[in-house]
Amino acid sequence: MVNPDRVSLDRTFSALADPTRRALLARLGEAGALSVSELARPIPMSLPAVMKHLDVLSDAGLITRRKTGRTVSCRLSAGPMEEAMEWLAHYQRFWSGSLDRLAALLEQEEAEQR
Amino acid sequence: MVNPDRVSLDRTFSALADPTRRALLARLGEAGALSVSELARPIPMSLPAVMKHLDVLSDAGLITRRKTGRTVSCRLSAGPMEEAMEWLAHYQRFWSGSLDRLAALLEQEEAEQR
Repeated sequence: MVNPDRVSLDRTFSALADPTRRALLARLGEAGALSVSELARPIPMSLPAVMKHLDVLSDAGLITRRKTGRTVSCRLSAGPMEEAMEWLAHYQRFWSGSLDRLAALLEQEEAEQR
Repeated sequence: MVNPDRVSLDRTFSALADPTRRALLARLGEAGALSVSELARPIPMSLPAVMKHLDVLSDAGLITRRKTGRTVSCRLSAGPMEEAMEWLAHYQRFWSGSLDRLAALLEQEEAEQR
């Protein structure tokens, strides 16, 4: 039997393995919701190529898409990232000073959020 | 120009997107160093197939291999995982209670390490 968590991690890591997809997630992280055309505009790629990347992100559960009239808006859905981070966290003892650095990073993120 | 950090994240996430490769890393995390044949033994796959997975992990910098006589021993090299975790940490504000959960996970890992 295939473990569903495994399949989910496969999809998450695979979706994150592309710089265009990571850039799309970064922009959604900053902007909240963006339409497909807003997302595609700065990317030197055809619209169908960008839409394929959005399909991969959507299949991995990393974005949600919502159609309003003729506009499809996309939002970040970070649940799978949390799973990926938990998997990676099991290995943090193998890098030095990780706890301090990660804590600092998380604190910085929290401060930016306020 | 291609950003080397991007290429490195591509390789890391791509290497982690396979359950066999994650299982190999998990065993190295528990055992420290293991020979290629020790690593391959429990895996229902041919030795060359396992060796291909080890090549991917090595290319991503996630393991190091060292030859002593006729034995190749493998070790976890967690640096790229740290980079991946730092990338993911930028998104932690998008999932709820993450800081508490992650802090708990890291504390648990630290306790197990002692």
